[in-house]
Amino acid sequence: MKRHLDQELADLKKHLLKMGTLVETTIFESVESLKELNVEKAKKIISEDKLIDELENAIDERCLDLLALMQPVALDLRFITMSMKISTDLERIADLAVDIAQRVMELSGKPMLKPLIDIPVLSTLAKRMSKDALDAFVNKDADLAEKVILLDSEADKLRNLVQKELVEEYMSKDLSTVSRAVPLLLIARHLERICDHATNIAEDVIYMVKAEVVKHHPEKLK
Amino acid sequence: MKRHLDQELADLKKHLLKMGTLVETTIFESVESLKELNVEKAKKIISEDKLIDELENAIDERCLDLLALMQPVALDLRFITMSMKISTDLERIADLAVDIAQRVMELSGKPMLKPLIDIPVLSTLAKRMSKDALDAFVNKDADLAEKVILLDSEADKLRNLVQKELVEEYMSKDLSTVSRAVPLLLIARHLERICDHATNIAEDVIYMVKAEVVKHHPEKLK
Repeated sequence: MKRHLDQELADLKKHLLKMGTLVETTIFESVESLKELNVEKAKKIISEDKLIDELENAIDERCLDLLALMQPVALDLRFITMSMKISTDLERIADLAVDIAQRVMELSGKPMLKPLIDIPVLSTLAKRMSKDALDAFVNKDADLAEKVILLDSEADKLRNLVQKELVEEYMSKDLSTVSRAVPLLLIARHLERICDHATNIAEDVIYMVKAEVVKHHPEKLK
Repeated sequence: MKRHLDQELADLKKHLLKMGTLVETTIFESVESLKELNVEKAKKIISEDKLIDELENAIDERCLDLLALMQPVALDLRFITMSMKISTDLERIADLAVDIAQRVMELSGKPMLKPLIDIPVLSTLAKRMSKDALDAFVNKDADLAEKVILLDSEADKLRNLVQKELVEEYMSKDLSTVSRAVPLLLIARHLERICDHATNIAEDVIYMVKAEVVKHHPEKLK
């Protein structure tokens, strides 16, 4: 039974990683569509979101089956219940990439307001945090999870930078920039929220591995 | 054992409802702090968020104990795992009320841009959807959950209205409005996201009750 459970858990990990890879690609593509103001790419992201939704449902069903049939305990139990929470976080991250694609649609046909500098940096951070958080989960690596949590303040700083520049250097000086600046401001916020979800996953990892609650207690990381 | 489990499940419901009531109050207070531009009220919301974080952790621990000790199946199993997902949604809703309070801090000391009309309507909708979604969950009421899901498009419409008015009637016409309009625009988005979380809870309820996946398939509701 335990061997069977181990095999099932290995399969569950594979599905989560597959979902994670799809989600990372979606974040990357959403920011590519922004850089190129590429409406076709943006539409593709929006239409393919249902694949990720289906993966979330499939993972949840598998977890419920494992709980009912295998009656796992201790770390295995935590791993399975956390997988259900993490599949939700991954699906929400993909929804945020869809939000970015929708902002790109709003921007289409207008000249780019400014060369993008901080937004691509923030998107690289978002992709890295998402990947590391999921790797930390499947490898039960609390050290990597702690690193992800510590990166979250970087994301907040970058988003503040983007917002401050757009408001102070563009919108407050030139009326004609508003309709192009607002979508960029929202994109920075979508990316920051992706980092928040990665942080949530990382907190769940530490909770699972250490079976103690660091969630909502960042001071315990020091 | 089953009787003991029923008692435990009744306790779990009580904890979720207690968390739900706190969260509803927080949404209400965050919009009150906006209407009054009341910094003290906003600070109180930010500082009291940790109580809700602690409730989430307590609910998750209780759910893990129930899964390990009672080895529930079928509807009870779904109820417990969904409780863990829902506690996360409730906690995120409270985080969004904190986001609103932070925007109120940014607005403090400045005259209100305009009389608030659509934002209070949106906040009433957000509060109602959150309450109904949780009631639907504890009462396993799929009909009420379906009503919540159908309200989500209202929330999107209201947020669009707020954004359109702020961009077209204020920011694009008068530079001096930008720093007061951007926080209001973000508050509308925070409220819309609260409605999204309520919709997620409602989808989980239908999933639990009907043990079928309507999540990501709104056409199944018709």
